[in-house]
Amino acid sequence: MAHSNRVPAYMGKRVYMPKAGDYIGSENEAKEALGGKGSGTADMINMGLPVPPAAIIQTGECVAYFKRGKRMDEALRPLIRGAIAEMENRTGRHFFDFDAGKKHDILLFSVRSGSKISMPGMMETVLNLGLNDARVEALVKSGENERFVLDTYRRLMQGFGSVVLEVPSEKFEHALKEARVNTGVKIDAELPPASLRGVISEYKRIISGEGKAFLQDPFEQVWLATQAVFRSSYNIKAMNYKTLNGLPPEMPTAANIQMMVYGNRNDKSGTGVLFTRDKNTGENHVYSDYLVNAQGEDVVSGVRTPVTFTGKGGCPFDKATKDELFRIVKGLEKHYKAMLDTEYTIENGKLYMLQVRRGKSSGKAAFRIVTDMVEEGLITKEEAVERITMDNIGSVLLPQIDPASKKGVKADAKGVPASAGSGCGVVAFTAAKAKEIAQQGKGAVLVRQFTKPEDYDGMMAAGRSGGGVLTAEGGSTSHAAVVCGGNGIPAVVGCRAIKIDGNSATVNGKRIGEGDFVTIDGTSGEIFVGRHRLVPPDVTPEFRKVICWAREISRLKVYANADRPEQAAEAVKLGATGIGLCRTEHMFQDPGRVEIVQEMILAGTLEGRKAALNRLLPMQRGDFEGIFKVMGDYPVTIRLLDPPLHEFLPDHVKLEQQRALRQAGGKTDAAADALLEKVRSLREQNPMLGDRGVRLLLHYPEIMEMQARAIIEAALNVQKETGKAPNVKIMVPVVAFPSELESAVKSVHNVAKEVMNERKEKIPYKVGTMIEIPSACLRAGELAKISGFFSFGTNDLTQTALGLSRDDTSAMVARYIEKGLLAEDPFTTLHPSVGELVRMTVERGRKANPKMDIGICGEQGVDPGSIRETLYRGGLDSVSGTPKRIPFAIITAAQTELSGRR
Amino acid sequence: MAHSNRVPAYMGKRVYMPKAGDYIGSENEAKEALGGKGSGTADMINMGLPVPPAAIIQTGECVAYFKRGKRMDEALRPLIRGAIAEMENRTGRHFFDFDAGKKHDILLFSVRSGSKISMPGMMETVLNLGLNDARVEALVKSGENERFVLDTYRRLMQGFGSVVLEVPSEKFEHALKEARVNTGVKIDAELPPASLRGVISEYKRIISGEGKAFLQDPFEQVWLATQAVFRSSYNIKAMNYKTLNGLPPEMPTAANIQMMVYGNRNDKSGTGVLFTRDKNTGENHVYSDYLVNAQGEDVVSGVRTPVTFTGKGGCPFDKATKDELFRIVKGLEKHYKAMLDTEYTIENGKLYMLQVRRGKSSGKAAFRIVTDMVEEGLITKEEAVERITMDNIGSVLLPQIDPASKKGVKADAKGVPASAGSGCGVVAFTAAKAKEIAQQGKGAVLVRQFTKPEDYDGMMAAGRSGGGVLTAEGGSTSHAAVVCGGNGIPAVVGCRAIKIDGNSATVNGKRIGEGDFVTIDGTSGEIFVGRHRLVPPDVTPEFRKVICWAREISRLKVYANADRPEQAAEAVKLGATGIGLCRTEHMFQDPGRVEIVQEMILAGTLEGRKAALNRLLPMQRGDFEGIFKVMGDYPVTIRLLDPPLHEFLPDHVKLEQQRALRQAGGKTDAAADALLEKVRSLREQNPMLGDRGVRLLLHYPEIMEMQARAIIEAALNVQKETGKAPNVKIMVPVVAFPSELESAVKSVHNVAKEVMNERKEKIPYKVGTMIEIPSACLRAGELAKISGFFSFGTNDLTQTALGLSRDDTSAMVARYIEKGLLAEDPFTTLHPSVGELVRMTVERGRKANPKMDIGICGEQGVDPGSIRETLYRGGLDSVSGTPKRIPFAIITAAQTELSGRR
Repeated sequence: MAHSNRVPAYMGKRVYMPKAGDYIGSENEAKEALGGKGSGTADMINMGLPVPPAAIIQTGECVAYFKRGKRMDEALRPLIRGAIAEMENRTGRHFFDFDAGKKHDILLFSVRSGSKISMPGMMETVLNLGLNDARVEALVKSGENERFVLDTYRRLMQGFGSVVLEVPSEKFEHALKEARVNTGVKIDAELPPASLRGVISEYKRIISGEGKAFLQDPFEQVWLATQAVFRSSYNIKAMNYKTLNGLPPEMPTAANIQMMVYGNRNDKSGTGVLFTRDKNTGENHVYSDYLVNAQGEDVVSGVRTPVTFTGKGGCPFDKATKDELFRIVKGLEKHYKAMLDTEYTIENGKLYMLQVRRGKSSGKAAFRIVTDMVEEGLITKEEAVERITMDNIGSVLLPQIDPASKKGVKADAKGVPASAGSGCGVVAFTAAKAKEIAQQGKGAVLVRQFTKPEDYDGMMAAGRSGGGVLTAEGGSTSHAAVVCGGNGIPAVVGCRAIKIDGNSATVNGKRIGEGDFVTIDGTSGEIFVGRHRLVPPDVTPEFRKVICWAREISRLKVYANADRPEQAAEAVKLGATGIGLCRTEHMFQDPGRVEIVQEMILAGTLEGRKAALNRLLPMQRGDFEGIFKVMGDYPVTIRLLDPPLHEFLPDHVKLEQQRALRQAGGKTDAAADALLEKVRSLREQNPMLGDRGVRLLLHYPEIMEMQARAIIEAALNVQKETGKAPNVKIMVPVVAFPSELESAVKSVHNVAKEVMNERKEKIPYKVGTMIEIPSACLRAGELAKISGFFSFGTNDLTQTALGLSRDDTSAMVARYIEKGLLAEDPFTTLHPSVGELVRMTVERGRKANPKMDIGICGEQGVDPGSIRETLYRGGLDSVSGTPKRIPFAIITAAQTELSGRR
Repeated sequence: MAHSNRVPAYMGKRVYMPKAGDYIGSENEAKEALGGKGSGTADMINMGLPVPPAAIIQTGECVAYFKRGKRMDEALRPLIRGAIAEMENRTGRHFFDFDAGKKHDILLFSVRSGSKISMPGMMETVLNLGLNDARVEALVKSGENERFVLDTYRRLMQGFGSVVLEVPSEKFEHALKEARVNTGVKIDAELPPASLRGVISEYKRIISGEGKAFLQDPFEQVWLATQAVFRSSYNIKAMNYKTLNGLPPEMPTAANIQMMVYGNRNDKSGTGVLFTRDKNTGENHVYSDYLVNAQGEDVVSGVRTPVTFTGKGGCPFDKATKDELFRIVKGLEKHYKAMLDTEYTIENGKLYMLQVRRGKSSGKAAFRIVTDMVEEGLITKEEAVERITMDNIGSVLLPQIDPASKKGVKADAKGVPASAGSGCGVVAFTAAKAKEIAQQGKGAVLVRQFTKPEDYDGMMAAGRSGGGVLTAEGGSTSHAAVVCGGNGIPAVVGCRAIKIDGNSATVNGKRIGEGDFVTIDGTSGEIFVGRHRLVPPDVTPEFRKVICWAREISRLKVYANADRPEQAAEAVKLGATGIGLCRTEHMFQDPGRVEIVQEMILAGTLEGRKAALNRLLPMQRGDFEGIFKVMGDYPVTIRLLDPPLHEFLPDHVKLEQQRALRQAGGKTDAAADALLEKVRSLREQNPMLGDRGVRLLLHYPEIMEMQARAIIEAALNVQKETGKAPNVKIMVPVVAFPSELESAVKSVHNVAKEVMNERKEKIPYKVGTMIEIPSACLRAGELAKISGFFSFGTNDLTQTALGLSRDDTSAMVARYIEKGLLAEDPFTTLHPSVGELVRMTVERGRKANPKMDIGICGEQGVDPGSIRETLYRGGLDSVSGTPKRIPFAIITAAQTELSGRR
C-alpha cells in the first residue's frame, strides 16, 4: 500500500463534493478538514454506498468566517452555486430553475454541522432549504401531497426562523400548539392543510414581528444557513459542552450541504438508527430503531415510539432493502473495524445512508464487542485494550438496584439520568447532613433544588456512602450532573416531580422527611421512595479477558488496598495481582476487638497493655491467615498500626457533654471520669501530624511486636497448610527520619527471628517503609539503605506536601477548581508538586539501591490521570487502590504503554 | 613576628618542665598538649612570674595510658623522677632524700588534672604527695608545727585513699566528723594533734578494711596519683559533663605535678581567687576573694567566709605583696587580652601564682569588659563580638524579680540555681496542668519531685508562660536542669525543703496548693511562696554598642516578629532593623474587636461581613500607623489574616456542654444554637492544614481588601505626618500554588491603586509570599516571578515537611531526642530536611529572579544553631524572631561571618 503519498481528494477544495472512488487518506486528517459527519459521508460515498449527494464546506472556512468578523467570503458563492449545479446534474433534479422544470423533481437541501469531535445536539442544522411560497403552490398544483408539502414548508420556516433569523423558537412552538389544540389533533403530522396554511401565515407574522423576513430566494436560504451553522460552533451550548468535556475551545465546524430525502413521504418511507452490534449486550447482530413514515426529528421528539428490530428477527420493511442495509453496515464495520452507529432513511422504498460514526455501547457490551472482534480477527488484543474507555469499566462496576428488589415496583418519579449507577440511602437536605449520615456509616442521598460548589463535600460523601444525588432542577450539564459524572456518583437531576420544602419534600405527592430512605437509578433516571437492595453486576468473562490482555501489555503491577479476605478475593477477581496496602487498624476497630484495644489504651502499665495485646494476637493472626490463603504467592503488604490511639476511644465531645450533665445532676462516675481524662490527654490539635504510625509504635513497641508476631505466625501456618510460602511485606507508616525506620525494622526482625526460632521454621519476608511525609522523600537515599521496599502513601503525602487536610478542604478545593486555581482535585489525581516529590524519591532511592522495589498505595496511584501523567513513566513498580478501581488502573497502564510505543 | 616557625618548648617532651623564657607558641596547641591548666602554668613560668615549679605529663600520655589498657609506660618513671630531681635542684628542697636532709626543706607535690577545655570539678586532683609516717614524725621532731603537719598528712591520706585507692570518701568524712564531735570543734583546722593522730589511725583502718594499703613510698604516691588523674578523664562525672555540654567524649587530661605551697601555714599565709575585672559589673578593677591561713579546699568547702577586696579599696595583706599581685595580673591580662580568673597563694608572706584562665563574668559584665577592652586598644571590635557568648546575652535579657518587690522579703527556701532568670506563676503539679494554666494566658510554675521526658511539654509551656520549673530532687545535671538550661526556662532544682504530696506541697512548712502563686529565681536559687513582680533588666549602653558592631560585621539582617508598637520599640532597642512578621490576627483577637470579628463570621451575607469589616478598618489602620511610626524607614512586613475563622469563635466543647445542659433542662436558646451550628460547621479535623491563610482570603476577599486598605491608608497617613514613606511589605500566608498568590497579589494591587487614586498620593510597597508549605518550595521558581519577596515560615514548614504537629508532638520529640532518634528539637533548630527545602527554594527562587529578597520569619530563623548551620551561608537576606531573640541572632550572624573569614 503506497497510498501514503497520495493527496486526499478534498485537499485544496474549499467546497468538496465527495464521489465514488475518491481517496480520503487518514481518518483523523479528514475529520479535521471535513468534520466527523462530513468525513463519514465522504467515506460512504467513496465506497459507492447509496448516500444523498453532498457538498462539504471545509472547517477552514468556518475559521475564516470568524476571522473576517463573521462575514462570509463572497468568493464562496460561486463555489457553492457550482456544487449545487453539479448535484442537480447528478440527481437530475432542480434547485435553481425548478419553477421552470417538471413536477416532483425539486431538489431541497439540509445544511448540517459537524466538527472534528462529535458534540451531539450542541450545534445547529437547517433542513428543507429551497422552498418558498411560489414553489409550494407549484408543487401542490402539480399534484404533490398537499399536507406533506405544507408541513415541509412549515418546518423550513420554523428551522430557518429560529436558527438563521434567531427568533425565539418558543414562539413557533406556541403557534403550532395552538393549531393542534384548535384542530384537536395530537401530532403535527395530523394537522390538515388548512390549519397548516394558518400556521405558515402565523409564522410569517412572528418573523416580521421580530423585524425580520423569511427569504424567498432558495440560494440565499442556503447561503445564510451555512453561516448560521458556522456561528453555532461558538454558541453557548457548544462552548459549555467543550469546557465540560475537556475539549479545546477552538473547534470549527464544517457545513454539510446535502440533498434532502424524506422518510415521511408515505408508508413506503421511514427513518432509522442502526447499531452494527447490540449496544446493550454487545452481541454480534445489528440493532435498529425504525419509525415508518417519519423524519429524524420525529424520532428525537419521542412522540411516536419506534419499532426495534435486530439481526435475529423480523424487519418492518421489505427483505431486499433489509438485506441491502445489512450488507452495507457490515461492510462499513469491516472498514472502520468498530461497532458503528448509523442513520438511514428509506424514501419511497429507496434506501439512503445518512450518517456513520463509531457507536457508543454499554460498558458490558464494549468488552463483548472488542473480544469478539479479536476472535473475528478484525482487531488485535492491543487495539482491543485501547478501545476500552474508563466509562466502559465504570458502568460495568457500578452497583445496580437488585432486579429482585425492584420487580413489580413502579418508580415514583423519573428525572434526567445524569450519572450512571444506583444509590440508596437516607434523605439529606443539606450537604452537612449528608456528611453526617455518611460519617455514621449509613448511605446518604443528597436531595437539593440544585447543587452549588459548596455542596461538593456533601455530594462526595453521599457518593462514597453508597447513596447519591437527586435534584429538582438542572439538566445533564448542570453542576450536579457534571460533578457526579466526573466522580462516579449516581445522580438523577431535574426531577420536577420533587417539591422540596426545608427539611422535607414530596415526590409526586409522597412525603419524604429526614430519616426516610430513597433509592435512585442514575442509569434510567428512576426514583423510588423507600429502600432497595443494590448489587454489583457480575464481571463478565469478556471483561476478565481484556484485563488479562492489559496486564500482559503493561509492566506496572496493580495491587489492591484490602483489609479482609473477602475484599482480597474481590480484588483478585477484578485483576489485582497483590495487596499493596492491608490496614491493620481496620481489624482493630471491629466490634469485639475495639473493647480490647480500649483496655490496652487505658491499662497504664506495660503488663496491662501486653495482656490486652495477647488477646488480640490470635485474632490478628487469623485475619492474616485468611488473606494469605486468598492471595497465594501474590505479595501481601501489611501496614503496621497507623492511626493515633484516640481513634479507638469514644467521641470526646459526647463524653464532655455527659460529664457536664453528671455534674449538673450532682452525680459522679469515676470510671467515666477516668475515661474522659484519658481521652482528653490523647486529644490532638492536628491528629494528621500527631503521635501516630512509627512514632506510636516506637513509644509502645509491644504493639508492633504483637503485630509482627501475628504476621509471621500466620505466614508459617499458611505455609505449613498449603505448602506454599506467602509473599509477606511488612510496612512501617509515617516515617519522617531514617533513624525511626531503623529502630522499627530492628524490632520487627527481632520478633521474626524469635518466632522462627520457636517454630524451627523459616519464611522470607521484607520490611519496608511508607513514603508519606516530605522529609521521607528528601531522605530517600538514606531510607533506601535500610528499607526492603518503598510504598508511597500519596494521600498523606498530598496532605503534607500541599498543607491540605483532606477532611477539611474539599469545599475549598471545589472552589479552587471552579476558579481555575487548581486543575484537578489533588486527592484524585496527583498534584505536580507531589509528583515532583515522587520523582525525587525514586531517583534518590534508586541511586542508593538500584533494585529498590517502589510502589504507591495511595488512591491517586490508581487514578488514570496520575498513571498517565506521572506514574507510568515515573519508574514505579506497582500501584494499589480500592478493588473497584483496579481495572481502571490496569487498562490505563496498558494504554499508556501502548501510546508510548507509538 | 617570625615566631610561627619556632618549635614550642614542650614539643617532643613527654614530661615537660616549663622555665622562664620558653617559647610556647599557639595557645590552642599548647592547651591540646598540656591541658588548660598546664598551658597557663607554662605561660606564667615563661613570663618569669612566681609560680611553684611544675612538670607536665602531656595529654598524649593519657591517651597512651588508656591504649595500653590503663597501664603506665614504665619508661615514664625515669622521666618523672628526673623532673622531680630537677625541681629539687631549682628549689633547694628535698623529695627523694628528705629523711637525710635538713628540717623544713621537704618538697611535696600535687598532681592536678587539666584537659584542653576546662571542666571545673569534674576530674581529680591529689595533694600533699610525698609525706609518710616517718617523715611526719621527723618534721614534728624538727620543730615543724605539729597540728599543721598532721593535718596535711590526714588530707593526703584522705585524697589518696579516695582518688587513688577508690575508697568511698564518705568513710573518711564520717571518721573526721566523729573526731570533731568528740572534741567539740567546728572546723577541721581546730582539731588538736591528738585527735588528728586518732583520725590518721582510723583512716589507715578504713583503707586496710577495704583490702588496700596507703603507700609509704613518696615516688609511688606520685606515680599512682598520676594514673588516677589520667583515669578521671573518663569517669562518670566527666563523661556526663561532656555529653551535657556538647564536648567530644575523647578529651584526655594532662597530669600536672607541681610543688605544694601552703596558704594554711600561718597568718602570714593565705589563698585567694582573683578576677582581673569585676565579674558582676565588668568594671576595670581587680576583684578578689581571700582567705587568710587557709588552703584552696577551705575556700571551696564554704565553712569560712573569705574577704572580698577590689582594686578600689584596701587589701587583707601587705601592700608590697598586693602591688606585686596586681602588677602580675594586669600583665597577664595584657598577655591574654581577656578578663582572667586566677588563683594565688601566699605562703609565709611569699606570693605564688597557681592558676590562670579566662574568666567567666555576668552577661552584663561581659559587654562592659569587651567594650572597655576595645577602648583600651586591647582587642578589636571583631574580637569583642566574638567574645560574647549566648549565655552572656541570655542572662542580660532574662527577667528578674523586681528588687522593689523583693525588698525585705526573705526567701522561703533555696535550691540549686539550675537555669538563670526568674519566673512567677500559679503552681502546677503535673505537666498537663502547667499547659492548661499557660493556655489560659497565666504564668505557670511546674513543681515536680523530678522531671521526666514526658514532662517536656509542660516545662516548655511553663517557660513560655513566664513561670518556670521547680524540683525537689536533682542537681545541676538533672533532666530538669538540662532541659531548662537549654531552653532558657528559669529553674531551681533539688530543693529538699519542698515536700510534694499529690496536688499540694509544703515549702519549709508553708502550704501551697493549686491556684497558689510561687516565684523562683533561677540565678540565685531562691524560692518565694507568693507573687513577685518580674522586670526585664535594662539593656546597657555597652550591650547596644556590641550589637551595633555585630550588625556592621554581618550581612544578614535581623528583624523582629512584632505585632504592636510597644513590641516594635522593644525590638529596635534590642537591635532589630525591621519587622519580619507582623501578625494581623493578634489585632483581631483584642477585646472590643473579637466581637466585631465574630459578627462578621456570623453575618452570612457579603453586606453583613462588609459592615463589620468597615468597623474594623479604622482600628487596623491605627495599629499600622503606630508600628510605621516606630519603625521609620525600616521594613515592616505585615502578614494578611492567617488563622482559620473558628479561632475567633468560642470553644466548641463548652458550647456543646451548654447545649446538652439546655436540652436536659428543657430550655431553648436560638442564638446559642445558631452559634453552635456555626462553630460546628467551621470545625476542622486538622486546622493546621485547613481553610486558612490565602485560602480563606480568596474565599472572603473582602477581608483581604479591608486589610490592604488599612495598610495603604496607614502608610499614606504616616508619610504625610512624618514626611517619610514607611517601608511596607505585605505578605500572603499559606501559599501552596502560584495561582493562589497571583490572585491575592492582584486583589491587593487593586485596592492599593484604588486608595492611592482616592487620595491622589503614592507610596511604594511590595506584596510577597510566605514559604511555609513544601509545595511552595517546589514551586519557588514560579512564585519568584509573581512575588515581591519570600519569607520562610519555618514553623509551619517544619510541621508540614516533617508531618509533625508542634502542638501535639513535643513529648514525642523529647522521647526521640532522648533515644537519639533526633539530634535536636526541629522547632528550635531547623531540621536538615527543612534546611534542604530552604536551600532548594533559594536556589529556584534566585534562578528565576536573581535579586529575590528572601527572609525567614519562623523562630528557628533566629536560632543560633540554624544560623550557623544553614541560614548564614544559605543566601538569606534576613531572619526574624521574637524581640528577645534578636541579639542572639545578630551576634551569631556576626560570629559566623567572622569564623568564615578565618
